[in-house]
Amino acid sequence: MSLIDLSKHVALGIDIGGTNTKFGVVNHRGEVLEKGYLKTDEYEKVEDFIDALYEKIQPLIESHGKEKNFDGIGVGAPNGNYYKGTIEQAPNLPWKGVVPFGEMMTAKFNMPCTVTNDANAAAFGEMLFGAARGMKDFIMITLGTGVGSGIVASGKLIYGHDGFAGELGHTIVKPGGRKHWSTGSEGSLEAYASATGIAITAKKMRAEFPESMLSQFPEEEINSKTVYECAVKGDPISIEVFRYTGQKLGEALANFVMFSSPEAILLFGGVIKAGDFILKPTKLHMERNLLPIFRNKVKLVFSELNEADAAILGASALVWEK
Amino acid sequence: MSLIDLSKHVALGIDIGGTNTKFGVVNHRGEVLEKGYLKTDEYEKVEDFIDALYEKIQPLIESHGKEKNFDGIGVGAPNGNYYKGTIEQAPNLPWKGVVPFGEMMTAKFNMPCTVTNDANAAAFGEMLFGAARGMKDFIMITLGTGVGSGIVASGKLIYGHDGFAGELGHTIVKPGGRKHWSTGSEGSLEAYASATGIAITAKKMRAEFPESMLSQFPEEEINSKTVYECAVKGDPISIEVFRYTGQKLGEALANFVMFSSPEAILLFGGVIKAGDFILKPTKLHMERNLLPIFRNKVKLVFSELNEADAAILGASALVWEK
Repeated sequence: MSLIDLSKHVALGIDIGGTNTKFGVVNHRGEVLEKGYLKTDEYEKVEDFIDALYEKIQPLIESHGKEKNFDGIGVGAPNGNYYKGTIEQAPNLPWKGVVPFGEMMTAKFNMPCTVTNDANAAAFGEMLFGAARGMKDFIMITLGTGVGSGIVASGKLIYGHDGFAGELGHTIVKPGGRKHWSTGSEGSLEAYASATGIAITAKKMRAEFPESMLSQFPEEEINSKTVYECAVKGDPISIEVFRYTGQKLGEALANFVMFSSPEAILLFGGVIKAGDFILKPTKLHMERNLLPIFRNKVKLVFSELNEADAAILGASALVWEK
Repeated sequence: MSLIDLSKHVALGIDIGGTNTKFGVVNHRGEVLEKGYLKTDEYEKVEDFIDALYEKIQPLIESHGKEKNFDGIGVGAPNGNYYKGTIEQAPNLPWKGVVPFGEMMTAKFNMPCTVTNDANAAAFGEMLFGAARGMKDFIMITLGTGVGSGIVASGKLIYGHDGFAGELGHTIVKPGGRKHWSTGSEGSLEAYASATGIAITAKKMRAEFPESMLSQFPEEEINSKTVYECAVKGDPISIEVFRYTGQKLGEALANFVMFSSPEAILLFGGVIKAGDFILKPTKLHMERNLLPIFRNKVKLVFSELNEADAAILGASALVWEK
């Protein structure tokens, strides 16, 4: 028997995305006891958003609070800053400038609140409850609408001097390459390996090779899902879209490996539904660009967590890290 | 008054290079009380090398040992492995394979011995005694015959799961670019920003622009020193050699910043003698490739340590880290 009865301790995990915010009550085993969501983009003012969250969550706290102790709140949000508890200049959220989100949550809920960026939260969830259990050195790459990352070294997330470390989606993989639709940078990983980037590649290849199955879809339906459907049916152009994406991703991963020499790289997010179509070329080009001392040592694996729960789990895990 | 009289504690710092090995007795204030060197490449067998080191160092230990306590030995060596105390497959050293250097030193000197790679040792020296004093997040880039690096995050060196983290010289800055003379990789930072890479760039530009002052030198005398001399005299081609080098270095640094968000990047080694000829373009291209949240925040500075002492200081500092 332990001195503290962990089974009575729970945390609140909140994952804030541009469209939806998901929340859950999580225990030490990583079980989501309760969950719910609300629409982020319906709240122009962050105060109204926090009030709405409170309305939804307070009943859960009250019902579980009879037998459980709420240890705190963990929040994963785009541009969430771990040191300051702020959300800063997040391009996809309705609240502009520097929002002291952690402080505001603590004032409302009367609980400690830890904030970090969404990819860091997912990495943390993976370390405690997912494919990175027991690992001390790994990199998590989230391949969704954008490309995010969380870097763990010696069992700790790397935050950097200002809390903004781990923007690997914005590293340049092809100097002078594809212009990023939002940052304006040329040749960033996100411009190629995000779902957005894959759609751009697919549209270009569809225009160049009209014989591709991709031509059966109208332009606006070309996305990583339709490309995957065509690849499964054997369309060589669609297969090439993922091969090209994997090459760019693999080249980037090789550079990341030579930085922090992780035991594993975890891939997470919608894009990994393409499976081996993307995994195999990624691995090939990663290995090809590594120094011999790093070769055939790094595991390249998909996330094991349910995508819907991972961010909530990771955010809640932040509470117990502190 | 402290309970332990630090002034009585010293460490032995050893910096092993391909040609020379330097050693020194260092105190807690980073003062090198004694120093000496021997020729690394005269010893084909590592056992003979350690015997020769012992011959030279034992008298120093005996004379200082009367009033000081030797806390241990720190070694910086190419491909030195912190976890295992080994030197592994170091291309520039006479001893091949995996050498259990730390163990052998402990057996001979009867003192604990810590091994790490030479750039990590230099970063450590810089953190304790140089330009990175008080910093918890910085990256050290050594620009010599090769390009090495030491990465510090939250006050700790990043070693990775196997002790080989921080090979930033081998990250690819230009996919499909210049072939590396030894690794065979294409477009690595080392292929451009090392003294060796600068000489290659200069020879190419000299052939292309025979009107350059560089044409006054025979091919074999073209190196970063002669290019610097011509740049100082106003030769535009020589200035362009450093500008091009700085561009590649700056692009690489931007990627490193987006990885670990350091407070500063420290440049160290022979190449920095080129001063502003290399620093200004490096800074320009680093800033240009950064996301806005990182811009104008990272200090780009030259090392403050005497190059001859820095590696010894860093190696000795390893002893007190443990």
